[in-house]
Amino acid sequence: MSILTRPILEINLDNLEKNYRFLKALAKNAEAAAVVKDDAYGLGSEIVAKRLYDKAGCRSFFVAHGIEGEKIRPHVPNAKIYVLQGIGEDSLESFNKARLIPVIASKEQLKFWKEHKIDGIKPVIQIETGLNRLGFREHDLAEMSPDDRDLFSMVLSHLACADEKDHFMNEHQLQNFNRLRERYFPKLPASLSASDGTFLGSNYQFDVVRLGAAMYGINTAPYRENQMLPVVRVMAPVLEIAELNRGDFVGYSATYRAADDRKIAIVSIGYGDGIPRSLSNIGKLFFYNGGKTSEARIIGRISMDNIICDITEVENLHVGDIAFVINEFYTLDDIGRDAGTISYEVLSRIGKNPRFVRRYL
Amino acid sequence: MSILTRPILEINLDNLEKNYRFLKALAKNAEAAAVVKDDAYGLGSEIVAKRLYDKAGCRSFFVAHGIEGEKIRPHVPNAKIYVLQGIGEDSLESFNKARLIPVIASKEQLKFWKEHKIDGIKPVIQIETGLNRLGFREHDLAEMSPDDRDLFSMVLSHLACADEKDHFMNEHQLQNFNRLRERYFPKLPASLSASDGTFLGSNYQFDVVRLGAAMYGINTAPYRENQMLPVVRVMAPVLEIAELNRGDFVGYSATYRAADDRKIAIVSIGYGDGIPRSLSNIGKLFFYNGGKTSEARIIGRISMDNIICDITEVENLHVGDIAFVINEFYTLDDIGRDAGTISYEVLSRIGKNPRFVRRYL
Repeated sequence: MSILTRPILEINLDNLEKNYRFLKALAKNAEAAAVVKDDAYGLGSEIVAKRLYDKAGCRSFFVAHGIEGEKIRPHVPNAKIYVLQGIGEDSLESFNKARLIPVIASKEQLKFWKEHKIDGIKPVIQIETGLNRLGFREHDLAEMSPDDRDLFSMVLSHLACADEKDHFMNEHQLQNFNRLRERYFPKLPASLSASDGTFLGSNYQFDVVRLGAAMYGINTAPYRENQMLPVVRVMAPVLEIAELNRGDFVGYSATYRAADDRKIAIVSIGYGDGIPRSLSNIGKLFFYNGGKTSEARIIGRISMDNIICDITEVENLHVGDIAFVINEFYTLDDIGRDAGTISYEVLSRIGKNPRFVRRYL
Repeated sequence: MSILTRPILEINLDNLEKNYRFLKALAKNAEAAAVVKDDAYGLGSEIVAKRLYDKAGCRSFFVAHGIEGEKIRPHVPNAKIYVLQGIGEDSLESFNKARLIPVIASKEQLKFWKEHKIDGIKPVIQIETGLNRLGFREHDLAEMSPDDRDLFSMVLSHLACADEKDHFMNEHQLQNFNRLRERYFPKLPASLSASDGTFLGSNYQFDVVRLGAAMYGINTAPYRENQMLPVVRVMAPVLEIAELNRGDFVGYSATYRAADDRKIAIVSIGYGDGIPRSLSNIGKLFFYNGGKTSEARIIGRISMDNIICDITEVENLHVGDIAFVINEFYTLDDIGRDAGTISYEVLSRIGKNPRFVRRYL
């Protein structure tokens, strides 16, 4: 018997690289850029970027903030690093130090760029095509001087509904994008799609696709079975096994009451480790003992450091055994759905706590 | 006009120290230990522990994991550091290096402790009184040898419903705790209450209270107005201001549609920064321009890096202005409620992203 206390995050870099290669092949003629913002969705941007740069020939990376670009620069010396949130006073140093390329989305940012230009760097322009998030609107483009238009090296936009293959917004945004780039930036390379858009076909792929979520194993084309290999596993040890008597309450605010005698396990992971508290009394953990898969329902409120689950039907379980929270069978997408959110949010939260034992495979 | 891109996390250490002192005074005769697990709920355990040790005389700290104790040890050289999740093979090194005190909750952990004892360290025993989480059950205590009982330096339990003053579980657990400690550990100091239990009165305070959530500004006694000073502010700059036309959609999956012409701001913070995605189309941001408070409703889905809000009624707003996400008026507790969770989970998530500009006041 092992006595363990820490949750475990396993990151399968081989599968991540395979996913990148799969998506790159899908994108055929487009360059396959890797999105490693938000610390590579929590999985470690330095390690992920280095792997893709060294082993898969990736030479373009997207981050959200300058500071994220600065962090990966030593590992991807000759790559282009694009910064989606643009440039500002609070990131200027990172841009200069790491030679980052800002994605400029407003005339205010363009003005700032012209006052703080970095020699040899040509920014990307983001244009709005229907998401109504960041991007130049058409009236801004119409007012832009030819000199200003010449400042840019690429034109970029972002799809709102690409995870639904037949959503009317896809075609609507594609038409807007083609119309605007042909009118205002006819000579520039173009980028419209993230992972989900890449699956929509070659007319959505243009010159650069931005591969993020799918590379990390998320199903960004949920209208069909996931074609991605799993990248993330989350596990945690059983700290204690105990009995419940009929009528016993469990957890904060006593939200679970045993209808008969039950057996429970206290597992060493909680919302402090990024497991959504909304899985309380809803989610499940899995055990693999003696070749058998057993499901254990989460009972009571999830607390900061612990989850309590019902193991009445689980055979031969011992303190120190490992509960699976996320794996190939119960995936990020499953846990996102059960938690009332999306896999992206779950993934982004899980990678953030240093108390995980982190294993890169 | 400032052009900024990064979200900002402001941590008011003066207020945190005042909250600690308030709770310490409330606890009268009990020692006031500080709970700094989960990186001090994301606020930085090293800085928080050092402040309380240096300025407020705090000499006992609780963490969840050995690795968290090791992290704060250099800043609190002569303090007791208790580890709530106990000791295991994956934390033994931290315990030895930092002279941590395990909280032992099962006979399996007790066996492990006896095989890996650290000279001069006497562990704490956690006993189960009604939460049905970690802790020795009574039949385990009855079977424990007198020698084993003598190993411990304190007896500890945890309340399930102390945030509800009149909840029947409080009295039930208090009676269980008193009965068990008198029967099995009559000579040991005792600890039952966290912040919420401390408010229940002196009979719940025993020898050590464990101050966490309330110290960080959370209202752990929500049946009355919050007596704590606010510790956390979260802000983010406006990246872009744009117009919506009647019929325009906003954000992923086009979940918001403008019923008439509106004005929007894109704010540089998202669920990647720990803002719950469940606030999509529900939450609000605040602006303080020209001495006037304006509320701006979040519209559309919150994305990883951005929130879009309706600023039609906000006067004189410019790119680079600061949106308030959490402050004295719209508190952690408010955002927890609006997000369908609790302030504890929100706080724990927000402190985890290094792309925040972090300011300690």
